[in-house]
Amino acid sequence: MMYSVIMAGGRGTRFWPASRRQRPKQLLTLFGQRSLLQRTVDRMAPLTPPERVVVVTAADHAEALAEQIPQVPAKNILVEPEGRNTAAAAGLAAAWVARRDPSAVCLVLPADHLIDDEGLFLSTFERAAEAAAAQDALITMGLKPTFAATGYGYIEIGPVLEPGPPALHQVAAFHEKPEPAVAESYLAGGRHLWNSGMFAWRAEVLLKEIEVHLPSLAEGLAGLAEDLGTERQEGTLARHYPRLPAISVDYGVLEKTKNIRVVAAEFGWSDVGSWEAMAELWDCDGQGNACHQGEIVGHDAKDNLVSAGGRLAVLLGVDNQVVVVTDDVVLVMDRSRGQELGEILKTIKDSGLDDHL
Amino acid sequence: MMYSVIMAGGRGTRFWPASRRQRPKQLLTLFGQRSLLQRTVDRMAPLTPPERVVVVTAADHAEALAEQIPQVPAKNILVEPEGRNTAAAAGLAAAWVARRDPSAVCLVLPADHLIDDEGLFLSTFERAAEAAAAQDALITMGLKPTFAATGYGYIEIGPVLEPGPPALHQVAAFHEKPEPAVAESYLAGGRHLWNSGMFAWRAEVLLKEIEVHLPSLAEGLAGLAEDLGTERQEGTLARHYPRLPAISVDYGVLEKTKNIRVVAAEFGWSDVGSWEAMAELWDCDGQGNACHQGEIVGHDAKDNLVSAGGRLAVLLGVDNQVVVVTDDVVLVMDRSRGQELGEILKTIKDSGLDDHL
Repeated sequence: MMYSVIMAGGRGTRFWPASRRQRPKQLLTLFGQRSLLQRTVDRMAPLTPPERVVVVTAADHAEALAEQIPQVPAKNILVEPEGRNTAAAAGLAAAWVARRDPSAVCLVLPADHLIDDEGLFLSTFERAAEAAAAQDALITMGLKPTFAATGYGYIEIGPVLEPGPPALHQVAAFHEKPEPAVAESYLAGGRHLWNSGMFAWRAEVLLKEIEVHLPSLAEGLAGLAEDLGTERQEGTLARHYPRLPAISVDYGVLEKTKNIRVVAAEFGWSDVGSWEAMAELWDCDGQGNACHQGEIVGHDAKDNLVSAGGRLAVLLGVDNQVVVVTDDVVLVMDRSRGQELGEILKTIKDSGLDDHL
Repeated sequence: MMYSVIMAGGRGTRFWPASRRQRPKQLLTLFGQRSLLQRTVDRMAPLTPPERVVVVTAADHAEALAEQIPQVPAKNILVEPEGRNTAAAAGLAAAWVARRDPSAVCLVLPADHLIDDEGLFLSTFERAAEAAAAQDALITMGLKPTFAATGYGYIEIGPVLEPGPPALHQVAAFHEKPEPAVAESYLAGGRHLWNSGMFAWRAEVLLKEIEVHLPSLAEGLAGLAEDLGTERQEGTLARHYPRLPAISVDYGVLEKTKNIRVVAAEFGWSDVGSWEAMAELWDCDGQGNACHQGEIVGHDAKDNLVSAGGRLAVLLGVDNQVVVVTDDVVLVMDRSRGQELGEILKTIKDSGLDDHL
């Protein structure tokens, strides 16, 4: 039996002003007609029906999230009273699944990524699920790099355990986000994969690894496990969840255990990390102007990214800008300045304009 | 007895996308809380009560216009079935006023200008009105130039007839929009005034001058005059007005007659000719960012002009742009490119996006 565990707790600010406290990135329709969350649930449907989809999310946006996926039972939506990082979130989901079936395989993935070739994605995830079902190990999905990214962690592959594609490897090492030259060497060497945040494991296997490597988390989860799936779930989470240790599942478990394998995946993938990332995803006119939810009329305008909320966007003598219009905000930003959006949001907060955050 | 004759037929495109076919510039609130038209009617109130305000406007926006100035009687709003330039419009208003009182003074002014010192404006217009009442002459308002403008026509003053300020002069000559060097010499010489489009004349005097210099217009006006102010006004205008000759009152009458005087006015004035003009009218932050209907949070952003429709405007690494957001359009334009807006509108029309015009 398989369950999809969708990690949807993020509050991402990099898509502000489209993303808000109560409408984070995963709930946005940044591409196509469905939100990133909806696309994620849809994508997993061939592997797991809605009643075997578990979503871990944050209290701020739990209500809006539930409205977007009415097919998923309300009790499958696990609401974190406050964020405790991914080890607690993945552990909570595993504990919830284990109450039903400890040997069930959890297919864990973020709610806010985009996948290019969904057929290849599914067959790769099935491969990971088979490995997780057959072995007492955590299976992580490593993505074959397509450029020398410095914004992702890398997984260095060890010996092949099962040939592919997609091949299953031992993990030689995890590496932090690299410097550009190191990233180039990873890309050239062919032995490093992007750490994608997608995993497969049996619920009981993850819980066991947590017990070994994060005993205080294991203890906390044990204290709330028996109320999961009952009417006491919400109250118990409210009391106990905020006391769980906050650490990432990568750092707290995956990088510590020897019981880990990696599937070398090759499907097209984007973590949709910023407005800048949309340049490759949205349709462009001949001048490199990309637009979503709107239409561009440009004159001497090139390489702009526009999310116009259905408006006609007219660009005259404008290059390399991000333009985003919502009901209450208009953002115009040089494309190279996306990293500074966080500072701007701090300024807005300090100016007492919180309503716009 | 005085009447204000407000010329409100303009369809100006230079404030697109705020200005539209059915909501031209004079109906926009570009400054403060009231539209340019409302400000114009308000400004004239100390001289002429609403029942002595006459507005000449275009069929496209007559309804929206009437809604903005409910205090002005509906019969005082003269609707041009199609635009026939300012000689016909001014002549029509004079004919309408003359039906009540041929010796009444018409204070003629555009609906879409801004005035800085309204006290000085009123006392100057009163001076013009006195001259118009006492003399069988057309009185034009010439504005003392504050910079070497190349976008306005100039009036060269002749001998002083009555000392000022504001002084009343004979008119030596009219001059077209000058080259920059000529404009500099006008500014330095002190004998040239901006032709402002504001006038004072007795209704009977203008009609007499039209008879002399534009006999075909005089004939056309005579043919519809007796229905003005009656229930037949609209039908008569629909039939006869489109056949009137289309010529400006400046070119067709003022530049031809000897019976013309100029008042040398010194009040602050703007014809609000483009988004660029708003730079001097809107409040700025310390970085030269000017905003109307909204609030700016800028970071490394300077000298931008923003009309955000009440939104928070966030500018990051952006200089010298005009940003305008409406319900259905967002415009981002280099400040130096305002002259090309007309071409853009043509492109929009050619693209079948007329709804946005």
